Amino acid sequence: MSYTDNIVALATPSGTGAIAVIRVSGPDAINLVDKLFKSIKGKKLTQQKSHTIHLGNIVDGKKVLDEALVSIFKGPHSYTGENVVEISCHGSPFIQQQIIQLLLRSGCRSASAGEFTLRAFLNGKMDLSQAEAVADLIASDSEAAHDIAMQQMRGGFSNEIQELRQELLNFASLIELELDFSQEDVEFADRTQFNELLNRISEVLKKLIDSFALGNVIKHGIPVAIVGQPNVGKSTLLNVLLNEERAIVSEIAGTTRDTVEDHISLNGINFRFIDTAGIRETEDVVERIGIERTFEKIDKARLIIYLFDGLNFDKEELGQVKKRYPNKQLLPICNKMDLLNEDQINKVKKEIPNVLFLSAKFKTGISELEEKLLSLVDSGALSGDSTIVTNSRHYDALLKALEEIQKVKEGLDMELSSDLMAIDIRQALYHLGEITGSVTTDDLLGNIFSNFCIGK
Amino acid sequence: MSYTDNIVALATPSGTGAIAVIRVSGPDAINLVDKLFKSIKGKKLTQQKSHTIHLGNIVDGKKVLDEALVSIFKGPHSYTGENVVEISCHGSPFIQQQIIQLLLRSGCRSASAGEFTLRAFLNGKMDLSQAEAVADLIASDSEAAHDIAMQQMRGGFSNEIQELRQELLNFASLIELELDFSQEDVEFADRTQFNELLNRISEVLKKLIDSFALGNVIKHGIPVAIVGQPNVGKSTLLNVLLNEERAIVSEIAGTTRDTVEDHISLNGINFRFIDTAGIRETEDVVERIGIERTFEKIDKARLIIYLFDGLNFDKEELGQVKKRYPNKQLLPICNKMDLLNEDQINKVKKEIPNVLFLSAKFKTGISELEEKLLSLVDSGALSGDSTIVTNSRHYDALLKALEEIQKVKEGLDMELSSDLMAIDIRQALYHLGEITGSVTTDDLLGNIFSNFCIGK
Repeated sequence: MSYTDNIVALATPSGTGAIAVIRVSGPDAINLVDKLFKSIKGKKLTQQKSHTIHLGNIVDGKKVLDEALVSIFKGPHSYTGENVVEISCHGSPFIQQQIIQLLLRSGCRSASAGEFTLRAFLNGKMDLSQAEAVADLIASDSEAAHDIAMQQMRGGFSNEIQELRQELLNFASLIELELDFSQEDVEFADRTQFNELLNRISEVLKKLIDSFALGNVIKHGIPVAIVGQPNVGKSTLLNVLLNEERAIVSEIAGTTRDTVEDHISLNGINFRFIDTAGIRETEDVVERIGIERTFEKIDKARLIIYLFDGLNFDKEELGQVKKRYPNKQLLPICNKMDLLNEDQINKVKKEIPNVLFLSAKFKTGISELEEKLLSLVDSGALSGDSTIVTNSRHYDALLKALEEIQKVKEGLDMELSSDLMAIDIRQALYHLGEITGSVTTDDLLGNIFSNFCIGK
Repeated sequence: MSYTDNIVALATPSGTGAIAVIRVSGPDAINLVDKLFKSIKGKKLTQQKSHTIHLGNIVDGKKVLDEALVSIFKGPHSYTGENVVEISCHGSPFIQQQIIQLLLRSGCRSASAGEFTLRAFLNGKMDLSQAEAVADLIASDSEAAHDIAMQQMRGGFSNEIQELRQELLNFASLIELELDFSQEDVEFADRTQFNELLNRISEVLKKLIDSFALGNVIKHGIPVAIVGQPNVGKSTLLNVLLNEERAIVSEIAGTTRDTVEDHISLNGINFRFIDTAGIRETEDVVERIGIERTFEKIDKARLIIYLFDGLNFDKEELGQVKKRYPNKQLLPICNKMDLLNEDQINKVKKEIPNVLFLSAKFKTGISELEEKLLSLVDSGALSGDSTIVTNSRHYDALLKALEEIQKVKEGLDMELSSDLMAIDIRQALYHLGEITGSVTTDDLLGNIFSNFCIGK
């Protein structure tokens, strides 16, 4: 499949900057832009080599819209595999819009979300899981998420699946060949070797499936609810945690504007903090609604920090939270340790054995808290080079593939006939193929690429 | 003056997009990036030609930060006139930050606001008024503002000043030469020709000074206060005006995100609408505060639209606004004309002679309103190719230059001695030179470029 039309979109973030890049892709991309471009040197873009840059004016008839740099990429040596032109213009929304409208009038159409990457996939520049990694890479806001997306984009993940699928495909062919000779009762496929392959595939699939728990955490971060009475120091604690993080990024002007206010990244894993109101028994209807809201917020958390003041703590509330959320990890933290004497500390320890002490005000005990938070995530797999699945579509396909592989194995054990076994193998091949895009449907592609930003 | 250090900044708008561009400029820019770049083809950036693009990985030691396109521009054939590298990476804030931090660790420093353009100016790539036009171009959000900035950036404005200044400089030399021969009473400078030149300069300066009124309107838009009682249809009218405008820009996804909600552009001129609460006599203290706020908002407007309902209008209020703002243009508009019969219309016309009728609900009379708004701006100069001054710094310098030119003329009429005249001519030359940057001080440059965005 190849496209015959030409698409255009803004490739850089919207808004005002020094420059903006408008991307055009399609068979006539270079021709099309050439007609709207007056090179300073008077040369035509169509006569230029690939991967070269040209200074000139973008013109609408006699009117100069902008002075711009135009980069040429000739297919197949481009991102999409088609002819691509990138126009680097002055970064005002007005100019971006004027140039895009000019291109639309000149025969381009607006690219749909992810269409450049879709074309790259359809032109064989990358497989489907690599294309998905492009979106993950752009969305990643922590080191761990970035590293995994980068690994996946560079093919680490899909190569593994692709190789397994190829081996399985070979066996499938042999087994289907047996069908043609079903009268003769021959076995082309070595059952021992086949069993060994199925075990190997199962093992890899299981490992990938298991990695999803961590992958999901890395991709979406860990929601942490901070619960506690007013004035126990919730926001002071949050500020201390955030400030330490903020200090690292604030060296570079302009990069922090999009930083979410309430998350911190520890060892590359994002912890997203959810601030809540206090919880206590009350007869007041309005207050009860507020407390219900707090519970709703806690519902979304994976981890609950219960912060209290060592001088006057109410074990009641902690008990309530524990009772309501028996399955969530609960971290009791005693703030204002600077105000406690040894007797008081011992009293708290006795009442709440697994408590952490800190002073948000004097920033003591903060690194211990960070260590504790990290220890609650099994991030062991992160340090190695092992592949981690972060995409729920892949996770689903892996689960289904594993299910089918188990069926094949059972069939093999039960000495099922080749024709029945072939059906299960086909199903496993199908689900593995879904991951890399060897098997696709328009619906699937539509779903995946509609989540991309426009211009990618 | 030339810089020996290397600067780096994000050149594209901050935030998430398909791609982002990081710009590096300085004597070692190419060398510096080369050490952090592994080309796919295995070639070194330092061996590549200017204006070429290279695909590869940005690496921090063994870790791959991103797959990126790197563009090389060798000085003086670059924006700054120095060696420049543009790294086109995936558009996530995380990646942008990682790459910029890597460059900072590798010997670059963060560019200050406008420093790329400052370097372009200092390296003689553009004069000062052209450099200022770059910032205006990026900030321009209407066709008229864009066109003027573009004309100025391409040198139209400064060429004119530069030529006049050169002619004046020639006469200044001749007159200063006369000082050396003051004992001999010779005249090297033809007084008739000099007088003719001074007249010509005065004329050009006056025309440029006069153009500033329009230039200012084009650059900053016209603030319009919409005043009227609740339910006369203020927001319906605003929506109708905005919707017609919105329809034009909404074809392109992603471009409208930064559009200010409450301005429209008519024939390239921005009208910025200020919504206000009603005005009426009241004894209520709280309400009076609200009305004072309304008056404060009206203070900022250049034009007041007084909107009222033809069925029950209160001439009192209109009178109050007129009395309080005798010098502001006031546009009385009668809404809901669809509900009025001929008698009622005539009654309104009789009471308020210059009234406009419309129905915001049925969108009748809207284009008449737009025409009326435009007619209140003297935009005649826009249609021609005449130069328009939009920069208040230029305006100040032009005023001062004109003042000095007048003094020289007076001196010439009074047959003042050459030495005294020479002082006034030097002053005029100084102020003309300020515009193009032939005369600069560090303070002046600091002021101008600190208003730029970082990365430009």
